[in-house]
Amino acid sequence: MTTDKNTKHKATQQKLKEKVDKGIAAATVQVGVCILLTGDGKGKSSSAFGMVIRSLGYGHKVGIVQFIKGEQLSGEEIYIKEKYPSLPFYQMGTGFTWDTQDREGDIVAAQSTWVEAEKLLQNPEINLVVLDELTYMLAFDYLSEATIINAIKNRPVQQSVVITGRGGGSVLREIADTVSEVKNIKHAYDLGIQAQKGVDF
Amino acid sequence: MTTDKNTKHKATQQKLKEKVDKGIAAATVQVGVCILLTGDGKGKSSSAFGMVIRSLGYGHKVGIVQFIKGEQLSGEEIYIKEKYPSLPFYQMGTGFTWDTQDREGDIVAAQSTWVEAEKLLQNPEINLVVLDELTYMLAFDYLSEATIINAIKNRPVQQSVVITGRGGGSVLREIADTVSEVKNIKHAYDLGIQAQKGVDF
Repeated sequence: MTTDKNTKHKATQQKLKEKVDKGIAAATVQVGVCILLTGDGKGKSSSAFGMVIRSLGYGHKVGIVQFIKGEQLSGEEIYIKEKYPSLPFYQMGTGFTWDTQDREGDIVAAQSTWVEAEKLLQNPEINLVVLDELTYMLAFDYLSEATIINAIKNRPVQQSVVITGRGGGSVLREIADTVSEVKNIKHAYDLGIQAQKGVDF
Repeated sequence: MTTDKNTKHKATQQKLKEKVDKGIAAATVQVGVCILLTGDGKGKSSSAFGMVIRSLGYGHKVGIVQFIKGEQLSGEEIYIKEKYPSLPFYQMGTGFTWDTQDREGDIVAAQSTWVEAEKLLQNPEINLVVLDELTYMLAFDYLSEATIINAIKNRPVQQSVVITGRGGGSVLREIADTVSEVKNIKHAYDLGIQAQKGVDF
Protein backbone atom coordinates (compact mmCIF):
# COMPACT_ATOMS: atom_id res chain seq x y z
CA MET A 1 0.00 0.00 0.00
CA THR A 2 2.66 2.52 1.12
CA THR A 3 5.00 1.17 -1.55
CA ASP A 4 2.29 1.73 -4.18
CA LYS A 5 1.87 5.31 -3.01
CA ASN A 6 5.64 5.86 -3.12
CA THR A 7 5.96 4.34 -6.60
CA LYS A 8 3.08 6.41 -7.90
CA HIS A 9 4.62 9.51 -6.31
CA LYS A 10 7.94 8.82 -8.00
CA ALA A 11 6.30 8.41 -11.42
CA THR A 12 4.27 11.63 -11.02
CA GLN A 13 7.30 13.59 -9.89
CA GLN A 14 9.40 12.22 -12.75
CA LYS A 15 6.84 13.49 -15.25
CA LEU A 16 6.68 16.81 -13.41
CA LYS A 17 10.47 17.08 -13.53
CA GLU A 18 10.47 16.58 -17.30
CA LYS A 19 7.94 19.39 -17.61
CA VAL A 20 9.90 21.69 -15.29
CA ASP A 21 13.18 20.98 -17.08
CA LYS A 22 11.57 21.63 -20.44
CA GLY A 23 10.26 24.97 -19.18
CA ILE A 24 13.67 25.97 -17.84
CA ALA A 25 15.31 25.05 -21.16
CA ALA A 26 12.75 27.16 -23.04
CA ALA A 27 13.42 30.25 -20.91
CA THR A 28 16.60 31.47 -22.55
CA VAL A 29 16.29 35.25 -22.58
CA GLN A 30 18.42 37.01 -19.97
CA VAL A 31 17.04 40.50 -19.36
CA GLY A 32 15.78 42.54 -16.46
CA VAL A 33 12.05 42.30 -15.87
CA CYS A 34 9.28 44.71 -15.07
CA ILE A 35 7.09 43.38 -12.26
CA LEU A 36 3.73 44.86 -11.30
CA LEU A 37 2.29 43.89 -7.92
CA THR A 38 -1.27 45.12 -7.83
CA GLY A 39 -4.61 44.29 -6.20
CA ASP A 40 -6.20 45.18 -2.84
CA GLY A 41 -4.57 42.54 -0.65
CA LYS A 42 -1.69 42.69 1.83
CA GLY A 43 1.78 41.83 0.56
CA LYS A 44 2.65 44.14 -2.34
CA SER A 45 5.18 46.51 -0.76
CA SER A 46 6.55 43.83 1.52
CA SER A 47 7.17 41.66 -1.54
CA ALA A 48 9.09 44.51 -3.19
CA PHE A 49 11.26 44.80 -0.08
CA GLY A 50 11.78 41.04 -0.09
CA MET A 51 13.22 41.42 -3.58
CA VAL A 52 15.44 44.22 -2.28
CA ILE A 53 16.93 41.75 0.20
CA ARG A 54 17.29 39.12 -2.51
CA SER A 55 19.19 41.59 -4.65
CA LEU A 56 21.38 42.80 -1.80
CA GLY A 57 22.13 39.14 -1.05
CA TYR A 58 23.82 38.91 -4.44
CA GLY A 59 25.59 42.23 -3.96
CA HIS A 60 23.38 43.92 -6.56
CA LYS A 61 22.67 47.64 -6.52
CA VAL A 62 19.19 48.75 -5.56
CA GLY A 63 17.28 52.04 -5.71
CA ILE A 64 13.97 52.70 -3.97
CA VAL A 65 11.36 55.38 -4.51
CA GLN A 66 8.23 55.48 -2.36
CA PHE A 67 5.27 57.48 -3.52
CA ILE A 68 2.54 58.48 -1.02
CA LYS A 69 4.14 56.79 1.99
CA GLY A 70 6.77 58.46 4.04
CA GLU A 71 5.04 60.33 6.82
CA GLN A 72 4.70 57.35 9.12
CA LEU A 73 7.94 55.54 9.80
CA SER A 74 8.04 51.93 8.62
CA GLY A 75 10.25 49.02 9.60
CA GLU A 76 11.71 48.64 6.13
CA GLU A 77 12.53 52.35 6.03
CA ILE A 78 14.32 52.23 9.38
CA TYR A 79 16.13 49.12 8.28
CA ILE A 80 17.34 50.31 4.87
CA LYS A 81 18.31 53.78 6.06
CA GLU A 82 20.26 52.41 9.01
CA LYS A 83 22.04 49.58 7.22
CA TYR A 84 22.44 51.18 3.79
CA PRO A 85 22.80 54.92 4.26
CA SER A 86 24.18 55.29 0.74
CA LEU A 87 21.42 53.31 -1.00
CA PRO A 88 19.28 55.69 -3.10
CA PHE A 89 16.00 55.85 -1.16
CA TYR A 90 13.56 58.64 -1.98
CA GLN A 91 10.18 59.20 -0.43
CA MET A 92 7.46 61.56 -1.48
CA GLY A 93 6.99 62.01 2.24
CA THR A 94 3.65 63.77 2.05
CA GLY A 95 1.69 60.95 3.65
CA PHE A 96 -1.63 59.69 2.38
CA THR A 97 -3.87 61.82 0.17
CA TRP A 98 -6.55 61.82 2.85
CA ASP A 99 -4.04 63.37 5.24
CA THR A 100 -2.74 66.11 2.99
CA GLN A 101 -6.10 66.89 1.31
CA ASP A 102 -4.01 69.11 -0.92
CA ARG A 103 -4.09 68.15 -4.57
CA GLU A 104 -1.78 70.83 -5.91
CA GLY A 105 0.82 70.27 -3.21
CA ASP A 106 0.69 66.51 -3.82
CA ILE A 107 1.23 66.99 -7.55
CA VAL A 108 4.34 69.11 -6.97
CA ALA A 109 5.68 66.49 -4.54
CA ALA A 110 4.89 63.65 -6.96
CA GLN A 111 6.70 65.35 -9.80
CA SER A 112 9.86 66.10 -7.86
CA THR A 113 9.86 62.52 -6.56
CA TRP A 114 9.48 61.24 -10.11
CA VAL A 115 12.64 63.11 -11.12
CA GLU A 116 14.56 60.84 -8.72
CA ALA A 117 12.83 57.74 -10.06
CA GLU A 118 13.75 58.69 -13.60
CA LYS A 119 17.42 59.04 -12.66
CA LEU A 120 17.41 55.49 -11.30
CA LEU A 121 15.67 54.21 -14.43
CA GLN A 122 18.47 55.72 -16.51
CA ASN A 123 21.33 54.35 -14.41
CA PRO A 124 22.71 51.04 -15.75
CA GLU A 125 24.57 50.43 -12.47
CA ILE A 126 21.29 49.95 -10.62
CA ASN A 127 20.09 46.34 -10.90
CA LEU A 128 16.74 46.74 -9.20
CA VAL A 129 14.48 49.79 -8.97
CA VAL A 130 11.49 49.74 -6.62
CA LEU A 131 8.69 52.19 -7.39
CA ASP A 132 6.48 51.65 -4.37
CA GLU A 133 2.87 52.87 -4.68
CA LEU A 134 3.56 54.43 -8.08
CA THR A 135 0.18 53.29 -9.44
CA TYR A 136 -1.71 55.87 -7.36
CA MET A 137 0.20 58.66 -9.08
CA LEU A 138 -1.28 57.39 -12.34
CA ALA A 139 -4.76 56.86 -10.92
CA PHE A 140 -4.86 60.42 -9.53
CA ASP A 141 -3.33 61.78 -12.71
CA TYR A 142 -0.50 63.34 -10.71
CA LEU A 143 2.08 62.08 -13.17
CA SER A 144 1.95 61.58 -16.93
CA GLU A 145 1.37 57.97 -17.90
CA ALA A 146 3.28 58.41 -21.17
CA THR A 147 6.35 59.72 -19.31
CA ILE A 148 6.33 56.81 -16.86
CA ILE A 149 5.78 54.13 -19.49
CA ASN A 150 8.49 55.63 -21.63
CA ALA A 151 11.02 55.69 -18.77
CA ILE A 152 10.27 52.07 -17.85
CA LYS A 153 10.47 50.87 -21.45
CA ASN A 154 13.79 52.63 -22.06
CA ARG A 155 15.54 51.59 -18.86
CA PRO A 156 18.86 49.66 -19.11
CA VAL A 157 18.18 46.19 -20.50
CA GLN A 158 19.55 44.29 -17.48
CA GLN A 159 17.70 46.42 -14.94
CA SER A 160 14.62 45.05 -13.19
CA VAL A 161 11.86 47.27 -11.86
CA VAL A 162 9.14 46.47 -9.35
CA ILE A 163 6.03 48.63 -9.20
CA THR A 164 3.46 48.29 -6.43
CA GLY A 165 -0.01 49.64 -5.74
CA ARG A 166 -3.65 49.02 -6.58
CA GLY A 167 -4.69 49.55 -10.18
CA GLY A 168 -2.05 50.99 -12.46
CA GLY A 169 -3.91 50.96 -15.74
CA SER A 170 -3.91 48.73 -18.78
CA VAL A 171 -0.80 50.17 -20.43
CA LEU A 172 1.36 49.43 -17.38
CA ARG A 173 -0.10 45.91 -17.23
CA GLU A 174 0.73 45.44 -20.86
CA ILE A 175 4.38 46.49 -20.68
CA ALA A 176 5.02 44.56 -17.44
CA ASP A 177 6.59 41.11 -17.90
CA THR A 178 5.18 39.80 -14.64
CA VAL A 179 1.89 40.87 -13.09
CA SER A 180 0.57 39.53 -9.80
CA GLU A 181 -2.78 40.57 -8.46
CA VAL A 182 -2.81 40.32 -4.68
CA LYS A 183 -6.43 39.74 -3.71
CA ASN A 184 -7.66 40.54 -0.24
CA ILE A 185 -9.49 37.45 0.97
CA LYS A 186 -9.56 38.79 4.52
CA HIS A 187 -7.54 41.17 6.67
CA ALA A 188 -6.91 41.19 10.42
CA TYR A 189 -7.73 44.89 10.47
CA ASP A 190 -11.33 44.11 9.55
CA LEU A 191 -11.48 41.85 12.60
CA GLY A 192 -10.60 44.83 14.80
CA ILE A 193 -6.91 43.93 15.10
CA GLN A 194 -4.50 46.88 15.07
CA ALA A 195 -1.91 47.21 12.33
CA GLN A 196 1.23 45.46 13.54
CA LYS A 197 4.71 46.92 13.74
CA GLY A 198 7.03 44.68 11.75
CA VAL A 199 4.15 43.09 9.88
CA ASP A 200 1.94 45.84 8.47
CA PHE A 201 4.44 48.70 8.53
CA MET B 1 -11.65 74.75 -13.32
CA THR B 2 -8.47 73.69 -11.53
CA THR B 3 -9.76 75.28 -8.35
CA ASP B 4 -12.96 73.25 -8.68
CA LYS B 5 -10.95 70.08 -9.06
CA ASN B 6 -8.84 70.96 -6.03
CA THR B 7 -11.86 71.82 -3.91
CA LYS B 8 -13.62 68.60 -4.90
CA HIS B 9 -10.43 66.68 -4.16
CA LYS B 10 -10.21 68.22 -0.69
CA ALA B 11 -13.83 67.35 0.09
CA THR B 12 -13.42 63.74 -1.10
CA GLN B 13 -10.23 63.29 0.86
CA GLN B 14 -11.79 64.79 3.99
CA LYS B 15 -14.57 62.21 3.82
CA LEU B 16 -12.02 59.47 3.18
CA LYS B 17 -10.00 60.61 6.17
CA GLU B 18 -13.05 60.36 8.43
CA LYS B 19 -13.58 56.80 7.22
CA VAL B 20 -9.92 55.88 7.68
CA ASP B 21 -9.80 57.42 11.17
CA LYS B 22 -12.98 55.60 12.16
CA GLY B 23 -11.45 52.33 10.98
CA ILE B 24 -8.24 52.93 12.94
CA ALA B 25 -10.24 53.77 16.06
CA ALA B 26 -12.25 50.55 15.68
CA ALA B 27 -9.12 48.39 15.46
CA THR B 28 -8.25 48.16 19.12
CA VAL B 29 -7.00 44.61 19.61
CA GLN B 30 -3.23 44.28 19.94
CA VAL B 31 -2.21 40.73 19.17
CA GLY B 32 0.09 38.93 16.80
CA VAL B 33 -1.53 37.89 13.54
CA CYS B 34 -1.48 34.80 11.37
CA ILE B 35 -1.00 35.74 7.71
CA LEU B 36 -1.50 33.32 4.83
CA LEU B 37 -0.04 34.30 1.45
CA THR B 38 -1.40 31.86 -1.08
CA GLY B 39 -2.23 31.66 -4.82
CA ASP B 40 -0.19 30.89 -7.92
CA GLY B 41 1.37 34.32 -8.53
CA LYS B 42 4.82 35.71 -7.85
CA GLY B 43 5.39 37.55 -4.58
CA LYS B 44 4.50 35.24 -1.68
CA SER B 45 7.93 34.31 -0.31
CA SER B 46 9.39 37.69 -1.19
CA SER B 47 6.57 39.32 0.80
CA ALA B 48 7.40 37.14 3.81
CA PHE B 49 11.04 38.26 3.58
CA GLY B 50 9.89 41.86 3.29
CA MET B 51 8.14 41.41 6.62
CA VAL B 52 11.35 39.92 8.03
CA ILE B 53 13.10 43.20 7.16
CA ARG B 54 10.25 45.21 8.64
CA SER B 55 10.55 43.27 11.87
CA LEU B 56 14.33 43.51 11.99
CA GLY B 57 13.93 47.26 11.41
CA TYR B 58 12.15 47.47 14.77
CA GLY B 59 14.69 45.18 16.43
CA HIS B 60 12.18 42.36 16.67
CA LYS B 61 13.22 38.71 16.82
CA VAL B 62 12.50 36.58 13.77
CA GLY B 63 12.62 32.87 13.02
CA ILE B 64 12.44 31.36 9.53
CA VAL B 65 11.64 27.85 8.37
CA GLN B 66 11.66 26.99 4.68
CA PHE B 67 9.96 23.86 3.51
CA ILE B 68 10.78 22.39 0.08
CA LYS B 69 13.30 25.05 -0.91
CA GLY B 70 16.90 24.91 0.16
CA GLU B 71 18.83 23.07 -2.53
CA GLN B 72 19.29 26.06 -4.76
CA LEU B 73 20.83 29.07 -3.06
CA SER B 74 18.64 32.17 -2.93
CA GLY B 75 19.46 35.83 -2.41
CA GLU B 76 17.44 36.07 0.80
CA GLU B 77 19.19 32.98 2.17
CA ILE B 78 22.65 34.39 1.43
CA TYR B 79 21.60 37.69 2.92
CA ILE B 80 20.09 36.42 6.17
CA LYS B 81 22.80 33.84 6.83
CA GLU B 82 25.56 36.36 6.23
CA LYS B 83 24.08 39.27 8.16
CA TYR B 84 22.26 37.33 10.88
CA PRO B 85 24.21 34.14 11.55
CA SER B 86 22.41 33.66 14.87
CA LEU B 87 18.88 34.12 13.49
CA PRO B 88 17.04 30.78 13.60
CA PHE B 89 16.83 29.78 9.92
CA TYR B 90 15.96 26.19 9.10
CA GLN B 91 15.54 24.70 5.67
CA MET B 92 14.20 21.35 4.70
CA GLY B 93 16.98 21.41 2.14
CA THR B 94 15.73 18.54 0.03
CA GLY B 95 14.87 20.67 -2.98
CA PHE B 96 11.67 20.35 -4.96
CA THR B 97 9.61 17.16 -4.88
CA TRP B 98 10.24 16.66 -8.60
CA ASP B 99 13.95 16.63 -7.87
CA THR B 100 13.95 14.20 -4.97
CA GLN B 101 11.18 11.94 -6.34
CA ASP B 102 11.42 10.28 -2.96
CA ARG B 103 8.22 10.48 -0.95
CA GLU B 104 9.40 8.64 2.17
CA GLY B 105 12.63 10.64 2.35
CA ASP B 106 10.71 13.89 1.92
CA ILE B 107 8.32 12.96 4.74
CA VAL B 108 11.18 12.31 7.14
CA ALA B 109 12.78 15.63 6.16
CA ALA B 110 9.44 17.47 6.52
CA GLN B 111 8.87 16.08 9.97
CA SER B 112 12.30 16.93 11.31
CA THR B 113 11.95 20.43 9.83
CA TRP B 114 8.58 20.78 11.51
CA VAL B 115 10.17 20.07 14.90
CA GLU B 116 12.16 23.30 14.45
CA ALA B 117 9.07 25.23 13.37
CA GLU B 118 7.22 24.04 16.44
CA LYS B 119 10.00 25.26 18.74
CA LEU B 120 9.73 28.74 17.23
CA LEU B 121 5.94 28.68 17.59
CA GLN B 122 6.40 27.96 21.30
CA ASN B 123 9.00 30.65 21.92
CA PRO B 124 7.49 33.93 23.20
CA GLU B 125 10.74 35.77 22.48
CA ILE B 126 10.23 35.36 18.73
CA ASN B 127 8.02 38.14 17.33
CA LEU B 128 7.70 36.83 13.78
CA VAL B 129 7.82 33.27 12.49
CA VAL B 130 8.00 32.64 8.74
CA LEU B 131 6.85 29.22 7.54
CA ASP B 132 7.78 29.46 3.87
CA GLU B 133 6.07 26.94 1.53
CA LEU B 134 4.44 25.16 4.46
CA THR B 135 1.20 24.67 2.52
CA TYR B 136 2.75 22.01 0.29
CA MET B 137 3.48 19.86 3.33
CA LEU B 138 -0.27 19.86 3.98
CA ALA B 139 -1.22 19.30 0.35
CA PHE B 140 1.11 16.29 0.07
CA ASP B 141 0.01 15.02 3.46
CA TYR B 142 3.63 15.04 4.67
CA LEU B 143 2.63 16.70 7.93
CA SER B 144 -0.48 16.40 10.07
CA GLU B 145 -2.87 19.30 9.54
CA ALA B 146 -4.18 18.99 13.11
CA THR B 147 -0.65 19.28 14.54
CA ILE B 148 0.11 22.38 12.47
CA ILE B 149 -3.19 24.12 13.17
CA ASN B 150 -2.81 23.37 16.86
CA ALA B 151 0.72 24.78 17.02
CA ILE B 152 -0.33 27.97 15.21
CA LYS B 153 -3.40 28.47 17.38
CA ASN B 154 -1.46 27.98 20.59
CA ARG B 155 1.51 30.18 19.77
CA PRO B 156 2.37 33.11 22.08
CA VAL B 157 -0.35 35.76 21.80
CA GLN B 158 1.97 38.56 20.63
CA GLN B 159 3.72 36.41 18.03
CA SER B 160 2.91 36.83 14.33
CA VAL B 161 3.29 34.03 11.82
CA VAL B 162 3.46 34.23 8.03
CA ILE B 163 2.72 31.14 5.97
CA THR B 164 3.35 31.00 2.23
CA GLY B 165 2.54 28.60 -0.58
CA ARG B 166 -0.26 27.65 -2.94
CA GLY B 167 -3.35 26.11 -1.43
CA GLY B 168 -3.15 25.37 2.28
CA GLY B 169 -6.64 24.08 2.88
CA SER B 170 -9.79 25.56 4.37
CA VAL B 171 -8.86 25.10 8.04
CA LEU B 172 -5.68 27.14 7.65
CA ARG B 173 -7.65 29.83 5.80
CA GLU B 174 -10.15 29.90 8.59
CA ILE B 175 -7.69 30.33 11.45
CA ALA B 176 -5.61 32.92 9.56
CA ASP B 177 -6.41 36.55 10.41
CA THR B 178 -5.17 37.84 7.06
CA VAL B 179 -5.33 35.93 3.80
CA SER B 180 -4.02 37.28 0.50
CA GLU B 181 -4.38 35.32 -2.70
CA VAL B 182 -1.60 36.24 -5.10
CA LYS B 183 -3.00 35.61 -8.57
CA ASN B 184 -0.70 35.08 -11.52
CA ILE B 185 -1.90 37.42 -14.25
CA LYS B 186 1.27 36.81 -16.24
CA HIS B 187 4.86 35.80 -15.59
CA ALA B 188 8.06 36.72 -17.43
CA TYR B 189 9.03 33.05 -17.38
CA ASP B 190 6.15 32.24 -19.71
CA LEU B 191 7.54 34.79 -22.14
CA GLY B 192 10.79 32.83 -22.28
CA ILE B 193 12.64 35.07 -19.84
CA GLN B 194 14.99 33.29 -17.44
CA ALA B 195 14.42 33.44 -13.70
CA GLN B 196 16.34 36.42 -12.38
CA LYS B 197 18.89 36.43 -9.59
CA GLY B 198 17.76 38.97 -7.01
CA VAL B 199 14.22 38.99 -8.31
CA ASP B 200 13.00 35.41 -8.61
CA PHE B 201 15.48 33.77 -6.21
